[in-house]
Amino acid sequence: MCQLFALSCNVPSAVTFSFTGLSARGGHTGEHADGYGLAFHDDKVCRHFIDEGRASDSALADFLRRHPIRARMVLAHIRKATQGTVQLANCHPFVREWQGRHWSFCHNGDLKGFDPRLTGSYLPVGDTDSERAFCWMLQELRKRFRGNRAPGWQQLAPVIAELAERIAVHGRFNFLLSDGEALYAHASTSLHWLQREHPFGTAHLVDHDLALDLSVANGPDDRMILLATEPLTRNEAWVPFAAGESRVFVAGEPVWRHVPNASRHATVVRAEQVDALIAA
Amino acid sequence: MCQLFALSCNVPSAVTFSFTGLSARGGHTGEHADGYGLAFHDDKVCRHFIDEGRASDSALADFLRRHPIRARMVLAHIRKATQGTVQLANCHPFVREWQGRHWSFCHNGDLKGFDPRLTGSYLPVGDTDSERAFCWMLQELRKRFRGNRAPGWQQLAPVIAELAERIAVHGRFNFLLSDGEALYAHASTSLHWLQREHPFGTAHLVDHDLALDLSVANGPDDRMILLATEPLTRNEAWVPFAAGESRVFVAGEPVWRHVPNASRHATVVRAEQVDALIAA
Repeated sequence: MCQLFALSCNVPSAVTFSFTGLSARGGHTGEHADGYGLAFHDDKVCRHFIDEGRASDSALADFLRRHPIRARMVLAHIRKATQGTVQLANCHPFVREWQGRHWSFCHNGDLKGFDPRLTGSYLPVGDTDSERAFCWMLQELRKRFRGNRAPGWQQLAPVIAELAERIAVHGRFNFLLSDGEALYAHASTSLHWLQREHPFGTAHLVDHDLALDLSVANGPDDRMILLATEPLTRNEAWVPFAAGESRVFVAGEPVWRHVPNASRHATVVRAEQVDALIAA
Repeated sequence: MCQLFALSCNVPSAVTFSFTGLSARGGHTGEHADGYGLAFHDDKVCRHFIDEGRASDSALADFLRRHPIRARMVLAHIRKATQGTVQLANCHPFVREWQGRHWSFCHNGDLKGFDPRLTGSYLPVGDTDSERAFCWMLQELRKRFRGNRAPGWQQLAPVIAELAERIAVHGRFNFLLSDGEALYAHASTSLHWLQREHPFGTAHLVDHDLALDLSVANGPDDRMILLATEPLTRNEAWVPFAAGESRVFVAGEPVWRHVPNASRHATVVRAEQVDALIAA
């Protein structure tokens, strides 16, 4: 299974510590050795790094671990190929422009029989189900918001959640999507989130014998959300998404959530546990 | 003035030597210190690096000089801001997807009063005349080739040359455009090209006290075209483009050219000189 990671902050932040843990799963502590990628959003524009090598020991990954690129929004992905061959064109995140902003997308899961009609506004470069889903979502957003320049996340969130549910009938569809302002996340099987804010403690990586005193790296007003397929640290209160849950995060804050009817009850319970965990 | 660079080869090749010369112009031997970028095309997909720092001494540029990324097609750009602020969103090459391929574009020059109607298929992320021109060109290509999936360079070349001429009435429009298969180049004022093939000699950089024995780096069947605003090496037969000339290169070979009526005579003369130079 691929590994997803995202960071949403209210100030530009580095992901060198988290990426050190995540990339260990790309060939060292994990079997996800079929490429990796990162998208660092700086408002409307995105710096995009993809590589078909192993995240645990490729030269580019090593560069990214050593040279912090500070950004308010970062998406990352470590690939274990399920559909699509091992090649650069199949490395996530995928990036496209819509309405003068770069959108990035990464997916964990596997879709069966998902072959929507793509009219040409966005076409896949590689041959994964993931990029096909991304192209279809952007195509549908473009159709829905035609003539509406710059819809906010408040307008986009329910539409993206609806599109996610339509795709998720085809299989496991855990994904991260961002335009640099908002982070749209959906889980059908596995995704976790964590908020960090003052007072910051010390985080210990799961995949590496490494700890970071977050109070040194962050100021008292800094606030950030981390998302990962599996928790990256072993001493922080990572919260699992419910099955079918969609969430939106902006500037280090959870701002919107939706759980489809079938699993709503379970998630409300979980949300209370979350509040208790955060308050603790 | 910005500095453009491109490489088209019949086998994957590194640009570390050329980029060492080019990037010296980004703050060291040149004044182009307002960002840089590279696009490494691998068939349909492109690895894209942009940075608003100085190409002569940024950490990413240093990484790219030390770690060869082999590709059949590379575009690079060192920026001296004329229109648009110094920011990441204004760094060339710009990249967009059309027909399931990544297209990259970089421009040297300055367009006045170029404000075409952009209908939304491609919109600029930054605020340069260059990205506007790129978005408009792709928008027009998409319109002309609607329903024609995967036109070849033979069909695209005359249309791109026509679009280039329409834009060039607005000012200096030297550009490089590629989909990873073909390299489309147009010069209104300054652009040079060079073919390297067996027997390979030794190349000496203009901007650096560095020479490379090309016969060690290349095999007898390797063939490559280099393009640059100003020649990068001081002992090779760089050929200037004529004013208004459009050219296409594929797999290290010149395959198409067009010179508008006004300057055709001058260019035919120049083309003979080129043949003589190549034969020499």
